[in-house]
Amino acid sequence: MVGGGQLARMTHQAAIGLGQSLRILATEPDDGAALVAADVHIGQPDDLDALRRFAKGCDVVTFDHEHVPGDHIRALAAAGESVYPSADALRYAQDKRAMRERLTELGVAVPRWRPVTTADDIRQVAAGSGWPVVVKAVRGGYDGRGVWMVDGPDGAMDLAPELLVEERLPLRRELAVQVARSPFGQVAIYPVVETVQADGVCVEVLAPAPDLPAGTAAEIQELAIRLADELDVVGVLAVELFEVDSGQIVVNELAMRPHNSGHWTIEGARTSQFEQHLRAVLDYPLGACELTAPAVVMANVLAAESPAQPLDERLHYLFAGEPDVKVHLYGKRSRPGRKVGHVTALGTDLGEVRVRAARAARLLAEGRTDGD
Amino acid sequence: MVGGGQLARMTHQAAIGLGQSLRILATEPDDGAALVAADVHIGQPDDLDALRRFAKGCDVVTFDHEHVPGDHIRALAAAGESVYPSADALRYAQDKRAMRERLTELGVAVPRWRPVTTADDIRQVAAGSGWPVVVKAVRGGYDGRGVWMVDGPDGAMDLAPELLVEERLPLRRELAVQVARSPFGQVAIYPVVETVQADGVCVEVLAPAPDLPAGTAAEIQELAIRLADELDVVGVLAVELFEVDSGQIVVNELAMRPHNSGHWTIEGARTSQFEQHLRAVLDYPLGACELTAPAVVMANVLAAESPAQPLDERLHYLFAGEPDVKVHLYGKRSRPGRKVGHVTALGTDLGEVRVRAARAARLLAEGRTDGD
Repeated sequence: MVGGGQLARMTHQAAIGLGQSLRILATEPDDGAALVAADVHIGQPDDLDALRRFAKGCDVVTFDHEHVPGDHIRALAAAGESVYPSADALRYAQDKRAMRERLTELGVAVPRWRPVTTADDIRQVAAGSGWPVVVKAVRGGYDGRGVWMVDGPDGAMDLAPELLVEERLPLRRELAVQVARSPFGQVAIYPVVETVQADGVCVEVLAPAPDLPAGTAAEIQELAIRLADELDVVGVLAVELFEVDSGQIVVNELAMRPHNSGHWTIEGARTSQFEQHLRAVLDYPLGACELTAPAVVMANVLAAESPAQPLDERLHYLFAGEPDVKVHLYGKRSRPGRKVGHVTALGTDLGEVRVRAARAARLLAEGRTDGD
Repeated sequence: MVGGGQLARMTHQAAIGLGQSLRILATEPDDGAALVAADVHIGQPDDLDALRRFAKGCDVVTFDHEHVPGDHIRALAAAGESVYPSADALRYAQDKRAMRERLTELGVAVPRWRPVTTADDIRQVAAGSGWPVVVKAVRGGYDGRGVWMVDGPDGAMDLAPELLVEERLPLRRELAVQVARSPFGQVAIYPVVETVQADGVCVEVLAPAPDLPAGTAAEIQELAIRLADELDVVGVLAVELFEVDSGQIVVNELAMRPHNSGHWTIEGARTSQFEQHLRAVLDYPLGACELTAPAVVMANVLAAESPAQPLDERLHYLFAGEPDVKVHLYGKRSRPGRKVGHVTALGTDLGEVRVRAARAARLLAEGRTDGD
């Protein structure tokens, strides 16, 4: 797996069960996955020589991010390496413009958008939908980075080298779904989930998405399967969606790897997205996606500015207070706002499960305060 | 963790979630845990210098087997290392004679037994219970090794350097229970399970033990908690028990580490025995032990003499046939009869779950035959 972050770290956990050991291409020896894996290469994801050395002897090469240039992936494939997803598929997760063009061709609903060549492009979208509009970097954005709400075109042209602009839709909520696809073409689809954002960063995932009509859920699942097929995805495809106030479902973003919106699957589904990604890229038959409990909530742990206690003590409070919440720490250095872990709670009543997950995430991020 | 087998391998998976990385003292670089962990020392568990080097810088030292001599553990503790379980506790898992003496003092039922000094000791037990009797090595036995049924004393004295002899009880079945205890003294107890043996080797674990009266289950759990307290165990204590034809419950063996009879907890309990062992030895509050499904079955995968297909193909058949069975491969070289992995199935009907687990284990061990 190219990339040594938490996605590779959790994929390594899954790989161990399958009798595999994940080779990691990390940029630093203290990357989250590099700290826990036996076979670590250090190198940059845009260094073709490093990629070639890394790929030598791997059964298959896959990614925990979108930063490997397509030409490098093609060069590896041309040299006989198995690489999944392919450069042609991954392009639609790397290039937001290419994705929107392709989805529009396929007749899939996306927000009204246009590439930005001049400030007039931004004004034109605003003329239709009003300000603010959403400006996005075409490449390299993630976790709310590379996305800006702008109230006018001033300064917007300098936000990133290549931009697109989108109408800002009146949202009921955000949804997501994971689908896995193997080279053989088998697909496995997870239940649709609701993702809750704060300041553009995912803080909570509710599985399954509450109060989603069965027909809508099935349509979203069919859409995800269709996208995986049409884009020839191999591995996990995460589809992030908007549920607009009108009820319409619109595709927001795509990722072709395990994704934050699927972390709930580790305990909440029979097969985790990490195991599923491995099964897919290794061309094994895929695993069952059924929920293991009626309600599953994943809450991200975002590092606090000044936690009340050191991490070890915060873990003590969390374990004492929530003995059945599961903890996943990523081994990352803490920096305010950084995702340093997540927690998962399961149960029968979504409201109750949500309270437990949120409390656990808060105890882990901020520590115990007088209110606890 | 001293020892690089599958127990350390699965403990490493749990450690990753807790934000830890397990340091392993393996005897070979291709030990199951050494293949997948970042921080591996190579050394023998009875080499005090290797143990000292290994322990330096560890938060706490623990074990995946019973092979570290008590004096070495005492030397590490005297040098200021945290070692759990302690030498005084671990003695009762290392020395079957010491265990039986101590349990007898505590008034806990064990099979009628005596240490073997001469062949007469064997004859004396047989005089009470009839032949065959059970002869056991006092030290070093595991997985059915170091246990012999003998029909007479001839040759029995040469089976191991130090022996004990036990009556052979008429068994209804074998049971087991896991309890975890922290240095603080908190305990967490799992449901009682049934363990199914073939030729002295565990092949299947049924959780919870079917048709066990609630009162008996509670008594067994109380007994395990009492033993953990009395023996001052820190970490997981596995208690293996006999349910005798009369209904009496008798202690068979103790292990002070994650144990094969607890592998079902990875998917079948809210907290796995591996995470629980880490939480205990790190003195974190312990996790919830509740079952995640009404019926959980773990089946060991014992390497077959001549499987019908290579491993990769067998995995394909298993994944295709049983998409919701979870697989754990240990990264071990295959040798007929060797435990190379296990599978876990969950559901509501024990009979159905058991069929699925057994089929999955057979597909993985032997491969697909005309009957499948």
